[in-house]
Amino acid sequence: MTALIIPAVPLIANVELENELAHKLDNKTKPQGSLGRLESLALQLGMILETTTPTIVNPEIYVFAADHGLTKHGTSAFPSAVTAQMVQNFLNGGAAINVLARQHHIGLKVVDAGVNANFEPNKNLLDRKVRMGSRDALTEPAMTPEECQTALNYGMSIAENMAGNLLIVGEMGIGNTSAASLLLAKLGNLPIATCIGRGTGLDDLGLANKQAILSQVLARHDAAKSPFDILAALGGLEIAMMAGALIKAASLRKVLLIDGFIASSALLVAEKLAPNTAQFAIFAHKSAEAGHIEMLKLLNANPLLEMDLRLGEGSGAALAYPLLVSACAIMNEMASFSEAGVSEKTAPAH
Amino acid sequence: MTALIIPAVPLIANVELENELAHKLDNKTKPQGSLGRLESLALQLGMILETTTPTIVNPEIYVFAADHGLTKHGTSAFPSAVTAQMVQNFLNGGAAINVLARQHHIGLKVVDAGVNANFEPNKNLLDRKVRMGSRDALTEPAMTPEECQTALNYGMSIAENMAGNLLIVGEMGIGNTSAASLLLAKLGNLPIATCIGRGTGLDDLGLANKQAILSQVLARHDAAKSPFDILAALGGLEIAMMAGALIKAASLRKVLLIDGFIASSALLVAEKLAPNTAQFAIFAHKSAEAGHIEMLKLLNANPLLEMDLRLGEGSGAALAYPLLVSACAIMNEMASFSEAGVSEKTAPAH
Repeated sequence: MTALIIPAVPLIANVELENELAHKLDNKTKPQGSLGRLESLALQLGMILETTTPTIVNPEIYVFAADHGLTKHGTSAFPSAVTAQMVQNFLNGGAAINVLARQHHIGLKVVDAGVNANFEPNKNLLDRKVRMGSRDALTEPAMTPEECQTALNYGMSIAENMAGNLLIVGEMGIGNTSAASLLLAKLGNLPIATCIGRGTGLDDLGLANKQAILSQVLARHDAAKSPFDILAALGGLEIAMMAGALIKAASLRKVLLIDGFIASSALLVAEKLAPNTAQFAIFAHKSAEAGHIEMLKLLNANPLLEMDLRLGEGSGAALAYPLLVSACAIMNEMASFSEAGVSEKTAPAH
Repeated sequence: MTALIIPAVPLIANVELENELAHKLDNKTKPQGSLGRLESLALQLGMILETTTPTIVNPEIYVFAADHGLTKHGTSAFPSAVTAQMVQNFLNGGAAINVLARQHHIGLKVVDAGVNANFEPNKNLLDRKVRMGSRDALTEPAMTPEECQTALNYGMSIAENMAGNLLIVGEMGIGNTSAASLLLAKLGNLPIATCIGRGTGLDDLGLANKQAILSQVLARHDAAKSPFDILAALGGLEIAMMAGALIKAASLRKVLLIDGFIASSALLVAEKLAPNTAQFAIFAHKSAEAGHIEMLKLLNANPLLEMDLRLGEGSGAALAYPLLVSACAIMNEMASFSEAGVSEKTAPAH
């Protein structure tokens, strides 16, 4: 077992750069502040990338896939086999995230973090299988310490080898909204009822069952206290690997474009393991999954889109991505008042 | 004077097509409805374009520019000269809308609907100048009936000559939030105080002055009752021309991607002149301009973005545009469950 070394994530604090960015935006040919959140986005991108000319280079989506031992208790509307089927769909280019990644020229790789099936080798598939699915968290920790550590290390290594400066972590794992809800409840000290939703489509009875099961899981792992122990207990192999990738990417000052509920649960874990990671995050959207709204509050996030998405895969992040490109383009390409010979605001006439 | 002939706009009603579109979406490899508003957008695009394979072809932005007689009363934070300066900035490619149109490969033309300045000929400038700015609506109608009719006809002719199937009407006109507020108050039967905002940056005193002036303008034109007379009285040459373009484009079943407050005021006028026009509208964003929120309520609109924009030019529409491309791509490129061999949702297990 490789040792687990969590890198330090730098604080973003550069008042001089922040002033330069604000000054540059204020001198563009538009009323000050009139591009609203696009301007704050441009400023944030400049701060993360440490430049007054932020540009996104080689953006990449990694879709982390894994199965979940807990699904045997009926916590998801879809059968577990769908995880592997969807991995194949990703590799064939037919899923929503393929379509959106192609539209925006975002690189896409699928990571087998722990799917309960084997795949033919494929240039777009990274085999990082820790186990054929996480363990049943109702009876034991979802991951042993070794498994959890391996997953985090794999994630860090993936981010370390990225060529680009923007990371989207997507996911596919039947049952992973349960893991995200458990992590939110435990790490956020929230009642489980406020942390759960219908996932990909549970009915009322299914939702009640999910809540009962998750309450038992939390009781079972009440003794877990450190972020690492909590992650190992409540799982998701893919969530652990995503958290590792987010931490490492932040330590390398890459932009983290955060998708929905599962991706933000990985960010929450990452922030607990490596404080400051969340500073590098841009939140793509507010989803229709109830727990996600609580998660966003906890992370003090103000997402860009609100489109009632609840698909995962990184789809919301891919939809929000062009807004980041726009923010960079505004910063880099718009003329200033003096360049364009446009008059600035007059003094009030009254 | 050319006769004003307002074309009829068809009702969008094709239950068979709507069912086909819904069925196609439900069979894509995702939980039903999990792409949220992207799915309703895909459905709306299919209905407007009358096809189960909607594709946006040759999207175009027309930025309609004009000056406003009312600005002599201090209703705007910027001097009138900025309208012409910004037209030059558009022609030089340095404004926000240039940057965003380039990013998304949207064609961009500037229309001189009535700027109080003359321009050198330019391949990207359409000279449709009706007058060197609208008249002072405090003392007379902003447009004579002939001027208003000419503006509407020019707009219709522009839409008639479009090669593509998606129209964005942007605008530039110092003082045009006043015209939009006046049209909203009059056509929506709303108190002027709820229809006005700070435009591009009025302070408190400026805002109070704007409200006082606009109240007087409304009193002056209390007798105007028909949509045409109201448009002529309260103006905006660019708003009249935008309204004409929207009506004609809707009659040709093109997608109308509506920007902010001014563009939606043109749509309101268009809907009053040619009922059903608004059915072809997709609302890009909710802006930070107070009147826009009232306008959206009146138009029963649910905009895609909320980014506190208050720039105009078509910038919010350009930012929302890739979401429309995504909606089409989802419809056309995603695999179905049967194509991908993915299992559908299981029956509830309880």
